Formats: sequence, C-alpha cells, structure tokens
Amino acid sequence: MAETISRFGAVELDDLPEDLRERIGAIAERSGFVPNVFLALGHRPAELRAFCDYHDALMERESGLSKAERELVVVATSGANHCTYCVVAHGAILRVRAKDPYLADRVATSPWTTELSERQRAIVDLALALAVEPGAFSADDLDAARETGLTDEEIWDVGAITALFAMSNRLAHLMSLRPNEEFYLMGRVPRS
Amino acid sequence: MAETISRFGAVELDDLPEDLRERIGAIAERSGFVPNVFLALGHRPAELRAFCDYHDALMERESGLSKAERELVVVATSGANHCTYCVVAHGAILRVRAKDPYLADRVATSPWTTELSERQRAIVDLALALAVEPGAFSADDLDAARETGLTDEEIWDVGAITALFAMSNRLAHLMSLRPNEEFYLMGRVPRS
Amino acid sequence: MAETISRFGAVELDDLPEDLRERIGAIAERSGFVPNVFLALGHRPAELRAFCDYHDALMERESGLSKAERELVVVATSGANHCTYCVVAHGAILRVRAKDPYLADRVATSPWTTELSERQRAIVDLALALAVEPGAFSADDLDAARETGLTDEEIWDVGAITALFAMSNRLAHLMSLRPNEEFYLMGRVPRS
Amino acid sequence: MAETISRFGAVELDDLPEDLRERIGAIAERSGFVPNVFLALGHRPAELRAFCDYHDALMERESGLSKAERELVVVATSGANHCTYCVVAHGAILRVRAKDPYLADRVATSPWTTELSERQRAIVDLALALAVEPGAFSADDLDAARETGLTDEEIWDVGAITALFAMSNRLAHLMSLRPNEEFYLMGRVPRS
Amino acid sequence: MAETISRFGAVELDDLPEDLRERIGAIAERSGFVPNVFLALGHRPAELRAFCDYHDALMERESGLSKAERELVVVATSGANHCTYCVVAHGAILRVRAKDPYLADRVATSPWTTELSERQRAIVDLALALAVEPGAFSADDLDAARETGLTDEEIWDVGAITALFAMSNRLAHLMSLRPNEEFYLMGRVPRS
Amino acid sequence: MAETISRFGAVELDDLPEDLRERIGAIAERSGFVPNVFLALGHRPAELRAFCDYHDALMERESGLSKAERELVVVATSGANHCTYCVVAHGAILRVRAKDPYLADRVATSPWTTELSERQRAIVDLALALAVEPGAFSADDLDAARETGLTDEEIWDVGAITALFAMSNRLAHLMSLRPNEEFYLMGRVPRS
Repeated sequence: MAETISRFGAVELDDLPEDLRERIGAIAERSGFVPNVFLALGHRPAELRAFCDYHDALMERESGLSKAERELVVVATSGANHCTYCVVAHGAILRVRAKDPYLADRVATSPWTTELSERQRAIVDLALALAVEPGAFSADDLDAARETGLTDEEIWDVGAITALFAMSNRLAHLMSLRPNEEFYLMGRVPRS
Repeated sequence: MAETISRFGAVELDDLPEDLRERIGAIAERSGFVPNVFLALGHRPAELRAFCDYHDALMERESGLSKAERELVVVATSGANHCTYCVVAHGAILRVRAKDPYLADRVATSPWTTELSERQRAIVDLALALAVEPGAFSADDLDAARETGLTDEEIWDVGAITALFAMSNRLAHLMSLRPNEEFYLMGRVPRS
Repeated sequence: MAETISRFGAVELDDLPEDLRERIGAIAERSGFVPNVFLALGHRPAELRAFCDYHDALMERESGLSKAERELVVVATSGANHCTYCVVAHGAILRVRAKDPYLADRVATSPWTTELSERQRAIVDLALALAVEPGAFSADDLDAARETGLTDEEIWDVGAITALFAMSNRLAHLMSLRPNEEFYLMGRVPRS
Repeated sequence: MAETISRFGAVELDDLPEDLRERIGAIAERSGFVPNVFLALGHRPAELRAFCDYHDALMERESGLSKAERELVVVATSGANHCTYCVVAHGAILRVRAKDPYLADRVATSPWTTELSERQRAIVDLALALAVEPGAFSADDLDAARETGLTDEEIWDVGAITALFAMSNRLAHLMSLRPNEEFYLMGRVPRS
Repeated sequence: MAETISRFGAVELDDLPEDLRERIGAIAERSGFVPNVFLALGHRPAELRAFCDYHDALMERESGLSKAERELVVVATSGANHCTYCVVAHGAILRVRAKDPYLADRVATSPWTTELSERQRAIVDLALALAVEPGAFSADDLDAARETGLTDEEIWDVGAITALFAMSNRLAHLMSLRPNEEFYLMGRVPRS
Repeated sequence: MAETISRFGAVELDDLPEDLRERIGAIAERSGFVPNVFLALGHRPAELRAFCDYHDALMERESGLSKAERELVVVATSGANHCTYCVVAHGAILRVRAKDPYLADRVATSPWTTELSERQRAIVDLALALAVEPGAFSADDLDAARETGLTDEEIWDVGAITALFAMSNRLAHLMSLRPNEEFYLMGRVPRS
C-alpha cells in the first residue's frame, strides 16, 4: 500500500511526531481521510512541518486573494506542470470553494486559454508566467496584473502560491505521488 | 446559448441535412444528449460528414486496438494538447470503456509519466511522440513500439488516431468548444 | 517500390475499391501521375475515403479563401511541422496556383518571417498559432486576424485547413511518406 | 535602498519579530552582513519563518549529501532557472564549501555539460530533470541516479533541494531580488 | 533593388575594395551572377573579407568531409534555423555537388528524420545537436559520431561548419536577405 | 594540459605560423597570459586567422556601439547559450570596460530580465531575439530597437556581434573549451 502512494514509501499517521499527528489528524477528521501527501512526506518530519507551515501561511491567509482564488492559482500552475496529485486534490478543493463543478477541469487542462472573468484571467496569467518561464518574468508581467486592479498584496499571494506549488509539484513528481480516490469525485455532485 | 458552445455559433439538430440529423440523432439517443462538437461543426455539413466518417472509421474499428485503448490515445494526446473538450468528453468515454474512474484524469494531466501497464505505456509514448513533436518522429519510435509487441496494424491505429485528434484538438481550440456538462460526471460513479 | 513510398507499404491503383479507384484515377489523369499519399493510405479504404472527402470539402471550396491562399496555409504549417511530403507536393500546387515560382520555398522554410502581403501574413500568422501551439490559441489570435479584414468564414477556412494538415502532416511522418519526384520541379519553369 | 533590494520593498532587521530577528541576526554575525532575501521576505513573517525552517531542514541536514553537494544542486538548478540572487549567493557558498573558486561559475553557466565527477554529474542531472521539465520526470531518472550509486536518501535530498529552490528562484524572480555585493567576491581569493 | 536584397541595403560590385571586387567577381563569373550575400555585406568590407576567408577555409578545404557533405551540414542546420537564403543558395550547391535533385529539399524540410545513409545521418545529427541546443552538447554527441566512423578531423569540420552557419543564418535573418532567383532552379534539371 | 583546454587538444604559441604567433603574442603581453581559445583553434591556422579578423572587425570597431556595449552583447548572448568560456572570458572584459564588478554576472545569469538602462535593455533584447530564436526574428524586433534610439549602424553592430558569438559559443561547446583561471577574478577588485 505504502509503495502505491509514493516511490519512497509512506508512514502511518501513528508514526508521526505528536505535533504532526495531531495536526494531520485534524485535517483527516475534517476530510474523512488522510491526504496522501502527508503520509508520503512523513519520513522527513522537519520537512513536513515546514511544508505544512508554509502551506497554511499562504492558503489559510485571511486578507488578499479569496480562498477560491488561491486554489485557482494552484490548479492552473499544477495543470501547466502536469502534476496529477495537485490537480486532483486541489481541483477537488477548488470545486468546493468556487461552488463550480466544471472550473477545475477546464483550468487544469487548458490554463492559458480557458474562459475566465477578467480578474481570474489576470491571476492565472500572472501565475503561469512565473510558474513556467521564471527566467522571462519581468516588470511587464507585474504591470499587466496591476492594470486589471490586482493590489500588490494580491500579486504577492499569486506569486508566492505559484512558488510554493512549483515546489509541491516537483515533490509529487519525485514521489510519483498518488491522489486519494476520494478527491476525484469531491465537489462534483451537490450535497443532498 | 449557441455562442457559449463555440466562437462560431452552433446549429440545432433540426438544421442539419437529413443524413446528419439521423446520424447525430442516433448518438444523442444513446447518450441522452447531443455532444456539442456536432452542433458546432454543423455550419459546414460536408466537413462534419467527413469528420464523422473519419471518426467512425478509426474509433469504431473492430480489429487492432481495443475500444478502451483507442480512447486512451485520444485522452493522452488531448491532454498534451491542452484540449478541454476532448479531455472532458473522451475522458468520460475512457472511464466507461476502461471501467476505471481514475485513469482518464491521470492520463490527461500527466500523459508522459503516469503509471500504466507496459502495453498502455507503449501506446501512449508512441502517440505522444507523433502528437507533440512530429518533426522528430523517427523509425526509433516505431521500433520501440514493436519491441513491446504492438503489431503494425495496432501501430497504425495509434498513429492515425493521434493524427485525427491533432485535427480535432485544433478545431476545438479554434472554436473554444465547450464540453456538455453531462460529460464531467459520466463514468465516475458506479451505475446502481 | 511500395516500401520506398511508405513504412507501411502501398497499394496499386487497381487494388482500391471502385469508387476510390475512379476518384484517384481522375486525379492521376489530371496530374500525369498518382500522388503517393493515395497509394499509401489505400490499405485502409474507409480512412482514405474520409481523407479525400475532408480534403475536397476544404481545398475545393468555392467561397472564402482563394485556392492559392488555401495552399499557402498548407505550405506554411507543413513547413513548421517539418513535413517533407506536404511541403513538396503542396509547394508544387502553390507555385502553380499563385503563379509564383519562389513563394513556396520561402514560406516553407521561414513561415514566421518571410515577407508577404498584409493579408497573406495575417493568414499565415493565424495558421501558425493554431498549428504549433494550440494550447495557447486565444481570442487575441482571432481578433488580430479580424483586424486585418479577414471574415469569420475565411478564418474558419484557415483554422480548419490548419487542423486538417495537422492530421496529414502526422500521417506523413508516421509513414515517412516519400513525395513523387514529379512534384519537385512542378511550377518552377514557365510552360512553353 | 529598500526598493533596490526588492520590487516589494524590504524590512530592517529590527522590524522583524523577535525569533526571526535573533535567527537572522545570528546569520548576519557569521557572514558579516544580512543576506537580502531575509529582509525582502520580512513583510510576511509567517512565510519567512517557514522558508527558514525548510531551508535549514534541507541545507543543514547532517546525513545524506555533503554540504558542498547540496550547494551544487542549488547552483545548477538556479543557473537553469536564470536566478541571479541564488546563483550569486549560493555560488559564493559553493566556492567556500567546495574550496573551488571556479566550480560555481562553470555549473551555473552550463549546468547540463560542464565536466564534473561521475557522482557530481549524476546529482546535477537528476536535479536538472526535476527542475526544468517536471512533467517528464520518470522512474528512468531515478534508475539512472541509483546506477551511479546514489542512495534513496541522497536522491531525496537532491529532489527536495531542487523543489525548494524551484520555489526560491521564483520568489527571487517575483521580487527581482538583488544580491548583496559581498557575495560576488566571496570564496574567489584565498583567505590570508 | 538594393532594399529588396537586404533591410540594410546592398552595394554594387564596383563599390567594393579592389581585393573583394576581384574575389567576388571571380565567383560571379563562375556562377553567372553575384550571390546577394556579398552585396549585402559589402557595406562592411572588413567583415565581408573575414566572412569570405572563414567560408573558404571551411567550405573549400581539401581533406576531411567531401564537398557535398559540407553542403549537407549547411542545408540541414539552415533548415533547422529557418534561413531561407542559406537553404535556397546552399540547397542549389548541394544539388549540384551531390548530383541529387531531391536531397536538399528533403534535408532542409525535415533534417531530423529524412532517410539518409548511416554516415550522412551521423553528420546531420551531430550538426543539429550543436546548431539547435548548444547548451546541451556533450561528450555523448561526439561519442555517437565517432562510433559511426567519423574521424576527429571530420567531426571538427561538421562542428565548425555548423558554427559558421549559426553566424550566417543569423546575419541573413538580421537582413531578411533575399536569395537570387537563379538559385531556385539550379541543379534541378539535368544539363543538356 | 592541452586536453584540459579542449577536447581537440591545443597548440603552443610557438607552433603557430609567424603572423598568428605575433598577433596572439601581443594579446598575451597585454593580458599577462594567452587566452585558451587561441591555442585551441591553433590546429587550424586559416580558421584561427579568419576568427581573429572577424573578431577584431567587430569588437575593435571605433564608431557605433561603445566597447562596453559590445561586450554586453557577448555576455548576454553567451549566457543565453550557456557558454562557460565566453561568459567567463568576456564577463571579465565587460567588468573592466564597464568599470562595474556586478554587471557581467547579472547579465550572464538572467539576460532577459536583469535591470538595465533603457538603451542597454534595447541592445540586449535585440541580441537575444536574434541569438535564441532566429527563425522568429522580424521587422518588429528592428522597429522596437529603433524606437529606443538605436541607429542602423548600432543595430548592425548588435546583430553582427550576436551572430559572431553564435559561432564562437558553438565552437566552445564543441571543444568543451576551458577558460583560463585568470579570467575569473579579473575586474572584480579595484586595482590598487
């Protein structure tokens, strides 16, 4: 089982240090399952702890981008980076947060051209520029984002989330990380 | 409504010449809805007729690749080409034909590296080589496919389906063709 | 001989079903030789028939782009796709239809920058955008084409021909299809 | 001054929360100056804290890769990503740790081909595969690394450091982060 | 007329310094016309002189590659670089030197995959590796060339000619240099 | 020693024909050492002579670009081409000529985006367009350069130097040419 999750194996929740066990346990309680990324990073607790801290600092932040917009950045750049785990897991969260069962598949498959609101398109274009060709990222990209009304705080959010998932996507590719089956269906059908 | 389907508008089923109306009508009866691609190509009946003929000649063929393998080629190359319509529509058919609710999302997102059986990987690698960088396609690609046991008939199927969807993907990008909402959920939950 | 035409062999004209034998025979009569593509696709008559239908629907169409402009799309995108058969065969037809012995070599070698009329450049730019990077094709590409005066009917022609030869180029690469020697010289010297 | 460090400004050491002030202060004491990255990330203390934690977990780790090898990964991938801050700052550290005044410039400029020991080349090749084209990273890349004798712990180090600097490089590009002038000369001349 | 040759104008043969006038004049006498490149570079006589010297040192050399093989390197790399002037002009010379009216069009259009003898393929593969992605050129490329029997002298010829035309192709693109019409037909029909 | 300079060996200064021995000797006298490129090209005196002539015609030219601007073109394009020899050797000369110990490392690492004066940015952008994607170089690139005030003589200088180092970079990659150690430190510390 552990090998089917990651090329480098996976721990059990009980194998984690106490602080991580509680933290991941709380996530599992809310979701109904333990997302595989936590078990797969568990063999390096210090790295997992920093990963969770960085993730929460950016994805749970109250001001700046909305929660759905943060997930939009993740799904668009993970699609461009061909990262199955992040597309499937964060696609599920995007469907839930945006209350839209179609947006995630459209953005993940065709991030450069799928039709979006002007604000969403500006967010996605900025994220893609930094994600895919960082060596060509210039003041022009920032200016284009500002012209659509994005504030510098929002621009930082877009850039920093893009950077964080440039890391996450590569960790997932390194591990060939497999998404939990629960993610595939989440947010596709209305809760009764 | 028609504009939301395609940048070039869409016809109604009743606007089509009789042979196409019957042909598409039969598809609609089986599926429960008219796939948007037919309405969007309907303004050019001669092209739509040739499109249907080419599609059926390759996708409904009895010998050679299995039906599920044919859809695998479509989903892998449409993912590489970032074509939302074909990924969503043929992803649905792949889920149904392969009886696997996860395969399509994995192949569409990460066609180059998602874990597959050796035969599936050979099929997908051959398809991607021809789809993405045709100018570098060489005898080495054919030899690699033959070494895994693919016959020349099967290789032709892979190549010809890849070529057909190189066309379809570009038509869909030209139109910004929108998938029917029904496709998104199809094949994800077991029929009760 | 058959192997030198295609990696998958080639049929004789007499091996084809009657409708195709007559149809290809008529082409051979006009040209003085049977273009190799028909003999190479002959082992799959249903696919060859759909190929001919699609080709004629787009390349023989009366309204929209001129005949020479249709060939310009083929030569530009086939050059970008490094397809020898289509560059040599349709380069010949372009020389004849445009009555210009130099245009085809220039467009095939350097489609992005060779000097053209404004209308020709708009046609070629639109075709290249869809041919080479379909996942980045956007409403901006259509707008740029419309600004030069191309109608939506003409834009469809450009896009659909580009899509058709995205298929043809890949079939030719799959087969390593060899051009007939007659094409190389056609249209280079004035008929006396 | 703050604007010349980053497009998003920079804090003073005294503006940081106490834990970060002490932590960065200790680094400054050892180096003789405060590396600009800490002042530039200081406007987001939670992100800076996670950044420092992740960095230390990977770059100060005792087992696995040597300290110089860890910097080699950083310089090679930052060169491939065209990141001036990381090339200049970590190039300095690599010169010091590898006691080689030439290695960093060679690796940063031409990471794919500069001549290295077999072990160094295996490390750099693995890092570049994951850094530059994560969507094509496959089991073959891991197998090639293992064949040169790299252990799975070392491979994880290479992959995780590559992933961390995929993030860092993008943050630096986002900010147009300017390297401290002290880094340029560090490690180039023998200490007297 | 001069502007149609180059964006930077062109000199007349008589405007050149005496040594160049004689040298180019001798070429014109042999060819029946003055190749446009000489007139277009004529505004910088010192550069034109060095260009001619470098060209002759490599293209007129007696030992190493044959004359036809030298032209094969030029046509293959100029095709990959989309340089119309060099493809048309050196394509003509290749037809003459290889006594083959088809080889040049095939190699220029599809340099990576057109069918060649093993020796020709080794020459072209080596040239393309250096021409197109110099930053990835490695000892493996040299080893592959040596394994097919190429000597180090021949390998140098391939590499140096590739390098020279990396320069020439870029000068031609800078000028939008137009080929003389005479080149298009040269070597296509047997001399009577 | 000779093999560590180049894969194809290197001559001694005394092995060169007299004119080259004097010419290179004079350079060595000024620099304090013989730059490796001359010894590595010495096995082909006619090519070395043309190389020196071309280099001097462009890099020692009095009118047009300043000396420092000429080196800026070399360092930017050699960085884009991942050429260690040219980045290290011409980076040294750029530091000296621009009297700036930081500019060369910044431009070599991140040529597309490092902050420069408007004139420098126009020079570098023009050079990169021609260096990296010559097949897409168009009149638009020239127009953008002219709009910043560059004259046609200066534009020619940028283009021709870019073309010359497209050649030099490839020769250096062919040889795996090693920079003299003296270059690494040159221009980094003020002369006392």
